[in-house]
Amino acid sequence: MGSLDDLSSSDESASSQLSDFKPLDPEEFRKQAHQMVDFIADYYTKIESYPVLSQVQPGYIRTRMPDKAPNQPEPLEDLFNDVNSLIIPAMTHWLSPKFFAFFPTTVSTAAFLGEMLCTGFNAVGFTWQASPAVTELEMVVMDWLANMLRLPESFMFAGNHGGGVIQNTTCESILVTLHAARDRVLENIGAVNMRKLVVYGSDQTHSTFTKASRLAGIHPSNIRSIPTNLAQGFSLCPEKLGRVVKDDVARGLVPLYLCATVGTTSTTAVDPLEPLANVARAYGMWFHVDAAYGGSACICPEFRHFLNGVERVDSLSMSPHKWLLTYLDCCCLWVKNSALLVKALSTNPEYLKNKHSESDSVVDYKDWQVAATCRRFKSIRLWFVLRSYGVENLQNHIRSDVRMAKKFEWLVRSDPRFEIIVPVRFALVCFRLNPYPEVESGDTELLNRKLLDWVNSSGKIYMTHTIVGGVYMLRFAVGATLTEECHVIAAWKLIKEGADELFKS
Amino acid sequence: MGSLDDLSSSDESASSQLSDFKPLDPEEFRKQAHQMVDFIADYYTKIESYPVLSQVQPGYIRTRMPDKAPNQPEPLEDLFNDVNSLIIPAMTHWLSPKFFAFFPTTVSTAAFLGEMLCTGFNAVGFTWQASPAVTELEMVVMDWLANMLRLPESFMFAGNHGGGVIQNTTCESILVTLHAARDRVLENIGAVNMRKLVVYGSDQTHSTFTKASRLAGIHPSNIRSIPTNLAQGFSLCPEKLGRVVKDDVARGLVPLYLCATVGTTSTTAVDPLEPLANVARAYGMWFHVDAAYGGSACICPEFRHFLNGVERVDSLSMSPHKWLLTYLDCCCLWVKNSALLVKALSTNPEYLKNKHSESDSVVDYKDWQVAATCRRFKSIRLWFVLRSYGVENLQNHIRSDVRMAKKFEWLVRSDPRFEIIVPVRFALVCFRLNPYPEVESGDTELLNRKLLDWVNSSGKIYMTHTIVGGVYMLRFAVGATLTEECHVIAAWKLIKEGADELFKS
Repeated sequence: MGSLDDLSSSDESASSQLSDFKPLDPEEFRKQAHQMVDFIADYYTKIESYPVLSQVQPGYIRTRMPDKAPNQPEPLEDLFNDVNSLIIPAMTHWLSPKFFAFFPTTVSTAAFLGEMLCTGFNAVGFTWQASPAVTELEMVVMDWLANMLRLPESFMFAGNHGGGVIQNTTCESILVTLHAARDRVLENIGAVNMRKLVVYGSDQTHSTFTKASRLAGIHPSNIRSIPTNLAQGFSLCPEKLGRVVKDDVARGLVPLYLCATVGTTSTTAVDPLEPLANVARAYGMWFHVDAAYGGSACICPEFRHFLNGVERVDSLSMSPHKWLLTYLDCCCLWVKNSALLVKALSTNPEYLKNKHSESDSVVDYKDWQVAATCRRFKSIRLWFVLRSYGVENLQNHIRSDVRMAKKFEWLVRSDPRFEIIVPVRFALVCFRLNPYPEVESGDTELLNRKLLDWVNSSGKIYMTHTIVGGVYMLRFAVGATLTEECHVIAAWKLIKEGADELFKS
Repeated sequence: MGSLDDLSSSDESASSQLSDFKPLDPEEFRKQAHQMVDFIADYYTKIESYPVLSQVQPGYIRTRMPDKAPNQPEPLEDLFNDVNSLIIPAMTHWLSPKFFAFFPTTVSTAAFLGEMLCTGFNAVGFTWQASPAVTELEMVVMDWLANMLRLPESFMFAGNHGGGVIQNTTCESILVTLHAARDRVLENIGAVNMRKLVVYGSDQTHSTFTKASRLAGIHPSNIRSIPTNLAQGFSLCPEKLGRVVKDDVARGLVPLYLCATVGTTSTTAVDPLEPLANVARAYGMWFHVDAAYGGSACICPEFRHFLNGVERVDSLSMSPHKWLLTYLDCCCLWVKNSALLVKALSTNPEYLKNKHSESDSVVDYKDWQVAATCRRFKSIRLWFVLRSYGVENLQNHIRSDVRMAKKFEWLVRSDPRFEIIVPVRFALVCFRLNPYPEVESGDTELLNRKLLDWVNSSGKIYMTHTIVGGVYMLRFAVGATLTEECHVIAAWKLIKEGADELFKS
């Protein structure tokens, strides 16, 4: 600590030199943030001109950067130049209207404004008192969204025991509910029986379920992945599940947790909640629904039936960053029995104690999430989206994406060289080039791999693939916020052109 | 799906109505984002005028909001009005220069710009290919920061097996490393022995350690919290730790993981890494260092000695959002053996497969973190901070905060009614009102509780308390970015005034 003593005894000029550095001068902030707004608005204007999938090779940025951070400040202009010349070429442009890969992330001006405000305040809401608005606005917005999804009151704060919370990701939503479920069961059967706990999903359940289960200490061999098939639309069959669970119980294992999906990643399959709830209830399992993608669509009455049976599940998560225009990352989790979550996740260090928490009159969201004391003002982003656009526009936005996917499906069906693998349910089209449908061979896969490579390396669009039920297929996911019908039509023309090229050679 | 057919057959006007909604029109974006910049810059200008700790009662926002989201859009003006009239009064203003509670979060214009860009791009970097810049810039920045901390090359990508990754929070850093450690040990001793795994920290280790351990399935009774004391500056004693571990081994338990802290939350105590590493190594434990707060200071040569011994630990985390001007949330984690992390956390669904990942020539950060496929472009924020300010300014910024804390300590010492509990090491002052030092009684605690309440309910400053070693003390944490010496002096005057009032009554 000698150096600190040196500091204390150092002269006035050193002291004034130290205080000259003002990293949050409001007028400097105003000036530079305005510049950044223009930079981003310009980027959105030009975004179609960039190759969607970055065409750089590994090492592109690392070999062009110095080994060390600079000692002295560099002007903002240099940073903008580097963003243009180094960063942008190495980006895959997720917001491009020609991005049809994975599931697109959806964004909006309102969400950007909300995010700016969230960052600007930089409030931390681990307890109610740490910033009351952070907690209360989240409670309000989560009830609003629950209403939009027509969730039963048992999932709302307006009810008695339930409520919603914003997590960063689906993995966290599964992890915290699995933790609550696990602790409840171990309390009864003893922690030495941890090795016996089994969790269930289908072979289409997102890989995040396996990841969360392993993080929670579930043995990999106890993570069941029930096979699905094309005939059943790749959805989890309740009878099959029932048989697997029964077998496990007969072997002395303990069924713990069932994860169903509304809108799987590969093909947007939907697991039937109602009959699955029967199985979960019969064996006393926690029943979670991962509606990360499909959940957003359920704000439209015509899609709501996919959530039928939700009144019998224990928890539900959906990610507005996928389809409700909110930027990354934002995963909404509702639980019916929040006390179980709090019991599993609460921490109560002295330095966070305050009269409101102790009187039990408030929600302290730190006990609903993974992080102990880190908690951003995320609800303000959703609040901006919901109020700026209103429910009807959001419903129309979903419908517009679905309509474009249907259009693409129609285009694919109109070309006899191609086939649709599963009917379009949301805004994803799973299809393949299959010129000789009577012969199922490795050649078909190779052909489609080549087509995908040809299309993506053009930089003109970006789409991805999957393999389900042994079939290699192309995924065309509509949903990037800037995508319009003209982009879908142009994409189809490009894909046809690729097919023409392949047949030529 | 009937309704979709309805949609397909609906008329042109419905179709055009659907497409009228343009939530990311670049010019609308530009206009509204400029408004938001001014709003936030104005907020920073006025921030001193707000009560630091919100003075509202529970229900303030919930009772003033409608039950449901609006069906129709509302104008931006209404949102700004509500932010002013509803949200701001219910905020605790973490960025106020008069915020001395918990640990302040530090921010800067550069970080705000970086965050805007991260949000604006909305790129997802789960694999290298998904957006190469997201992965490569993170690798560069993590090596830069490792250099600034003078970490050994074994923690860098420049070395062979190690590297850094940005997590959201310390809890995630501990969770992923603990998961890797746990799986490595269970592979040897068998998963049925999970109940035997023991983890170690001190009674000053952050509550996030308990939380992460429980999430990972460590039994609560196997989470050791070794007592510390004032005489040893509340740091973890290696000899005590050694005895506890030895006892556990004798009882047939398996030592798994040791978490040391550089800068504890209550009093900024520092655990001695070098001798603790001896214990960890003797028992084959994973050794993690949580330097969330203290780590930032170690970019200054005069503080670097707190990391002595770091070359012998397995992982280290520190949170630039605490003291390196980066806004929430940003926790940097370095590991020596990244293969262990990847082994524990990797998922490999078909739809993410690509030739770069399969050739093993790139880093896929999805396998270094909790979330499976969610990953923001967080490094760009750090990159903006490091380049815009340069290392020297960041060092001076740390020193300036320490100097202000020392000033406050000096002021406290100058008033005989007060006492300093532990010498100031970083920028936190732990002190209490203790007018009758010869009598240790509950009255002293009550007096300090009253003083804290008086001070905080004034709205003029916000500070918090802790209890360590049975002593109730006040925590005065310097570090909010806008804080200058005048605020520290004014805070001290207010505290003295509070003491005067208490003695009057």
